[in-house]
Amino acid sequence: MIEEIKSAYNRINKRGVRTPLLTFPALNEFLGGTIYLKPENLQHTGSFKYRGAMNHIRSLAEAGKRPTIIAYSSGNHAQGVARAASEANLQATIVMPSDAPKVKINRTRAFGAKVVLYDRVNQIREEVAANLENAEKSYLIPPFDNNLTIAGQGTLGLEVTEQLDGAQLDQTLICCGGGGLATGVTAALRHAYPDVLSYLVEPEDFDDFGRSLVLGDRIRNSKLTGSICDAIITPTPGAITFPLAMKLKMQGLAVSDDEALHAVAYAAQKLRLITEPGGAVALAAALTNKIDLAGKSTLIVLSGGNIDNDLLQKALSLDLPAKWR
Amino acid sequence: MIEEIKSAYNRINKRGVRTPLLTFPALNEFLGGTIYLKPENLQHTGSFKYRGAMNHIRSLAEAGKRPTIIAYSSGNHAQGVARAASEANLQATIVMPSDAPKVKINRTRAFGAKVVLYDRVNQIREEVAANLENAEKSYLIPPFDNNLTIAGQGTLGLEVTEQLDGAQLDQTLICCGGGGLATGVTAALRHAYPDVLSYLVEPEDFDDFGRSLVLGDRIRNSKLTGSICDAIITPTPGAITFPLAMKLKMQGLAVSDDEALHAVAYAAQKLRLITEPGGAVALAAALTNKIDLAGKSTLIVLSGGNIDNDLLQKALSLDLPAKWR
Repeated sequence: MIEEIKSAYNRINKRGVRTPLLTFPALNEFLGGTIYLKPENLQHTGSFKYRGAMNHIRSLAEAGKRPTIIAYSSGNHAQGVARAASEANLQATIVMPSDAPKVKINRTRAFGAKVVLYDRVNQIREEVAANLENAEKSYLIPPFDNNLTIAGQGTLGLEVTEQLDGAQLDQTLICCGGGGLATGVTAALRHAYPDVLSYLVEPEDFDDFGRSLVLGDRIRNSKLTGSICDAIITPTPGAITFPLAMKLKMQGLAVSDDEALHAVAYAAQKLRLITEPGGAVALAAALTNKIDLAGKSTLIVLSGGNIDNDLLQKALSLDLPAKWR
Repeated sequence: MIEEIKSAYNRINKRGVRTPLLTFPALNEFLGGTIYLKPENLQHTGSFKYRGAMNHIRSLAEAGKRPTIIAYSSGNHAQGVARAASEANLQATIVMPSDAPKVKINRTRAFGAKVVLYDRVNQIREEVAANLENAEKSYLIPPFDNNLTIAGQGTLGLEVTEQLDGAQLDQTLICCGGGGLATGVTAALRHAYPDVLSYLVEPEDFDDFGRSLVLGDRIRNSKLTGSICDAIITPTPGAITFPLAMKLKMQGLAVSDDEALHAVAYAAQKLRLITEPGGAVALAAALTNKIDLAGKSTLIVLSGGNIDNDLLQKALSLDLPAKWR
């Protein structure tokens, strides 16, 4: 996988945002270790999804192909694909759940993509998209379970390695839906840090990936809706990402919606970063001490920042625990 | 000045955050040109002030000196100096106005600095600080009117030049208090872009710098308080920054508090960036078409992000004009 990630890096490096690696002394003091934050909420379209989408788009360009682009997405992948396609002047059709946050649907349309809404509970999005794909003779960009997607998303890990410039790294916390980001970044980091521990973080009740890792077998969530972490609600781990995560010896953690929303508030009030709940679960896991951070160097990936204004206002009205400095 | 800025860049380059250069297609479409945003709200301590402070601190280290550090500041310079001093294990005493935002006073104290509060209307902060300086045999880091400060703050312009990587740049909008950032960044940009137009942006009724540029002579504001743009309220242009700005043929623009607060709301809702009013005046000038942006490439510097939570909530409750996409 590392060679595919390096190829992806060369392909998309000049096109994406090189998001900074941030440190906050007050956060380090509170958690008792060295925390590096990678704010992918600042990536084009507000999430890491642009990286995977652009890896596909550039690969198509290298092959001289100009198909119509299709994607199915709860919103962040939608925007990433829509912007990447529009930058290459390719037409895009995006299949989105009808209950996706308005801000995500609107921003996807703003990139000129055709948006097809579907019912998340009663329709299977892969089937909706596959029908479109066959009908329109087009190219599907999967949100996570695909090597080009994983490699593109994994470029974040190579960037972090460069930015750390040889500094110690003991462990990493990564937000996880289908696992493309979590596995890609972990594979990239292990190249420079062979012993780095890697934790993927999911919402409670939607922690299919973490529970699957414990069982050594892919299981499904019993629910498909009902979390504010809409960006990372997936029914089951990917057929490619799951064995990769097993091989990488990743472990799963879960946080509640309340913990995720408090992390959104913390990021805004203390770190000056706007995140969405699904993009803040890794930070939430740190703030609520789901693993031991004291005396260690930990990378936390903030994976997205597309939050509806009313939910952000709700987060800002929360009282933070006094010790969350 | 360019040689001093290059020296500063070599001195502090590895210590500060290399803030990204961001583009937003929706913003470009709205304004009809190419907009580059430089979000210094993501710099250490939430503003560009760290750059100037660190240039002093590293210069002292190069000279083998370890004085007590003094600064006077409405809040952002305070934090920049406090963090830079603490990173060099130097004691710092910061003189702050008693009406500075709580978040800024608290964050300055959190870096281990001793904070001395003064009355902005009835006391002259330079005198308060000078007394401390004499008494304690220490080193004063001026907030803007000093070559090391200007050069450090100007490193932002060299960074932007690198990030533009040869792309066209026609003009720049820079938030302005005493003018250290505005002149330093302009001097740096002119090295690569000799013809770039440079506008400094101030709050209405506190636009001493812009009015002085028109008159060719330094004048004072009639008021010293009464704007939400606390970060950039200064009584008069600097003795060093003013002639530099004249030489650089800079021009002044002014925005109202209401326009600044709407820009804070726009940055949060549309750009996923938390800014403070004083750090958003350059963006406000663009959003309200104070100059023509159509068909041009414009750099906008967002200079700070230390905003009290209640003011941020107030901004988020504003209705944005429909055309502010």
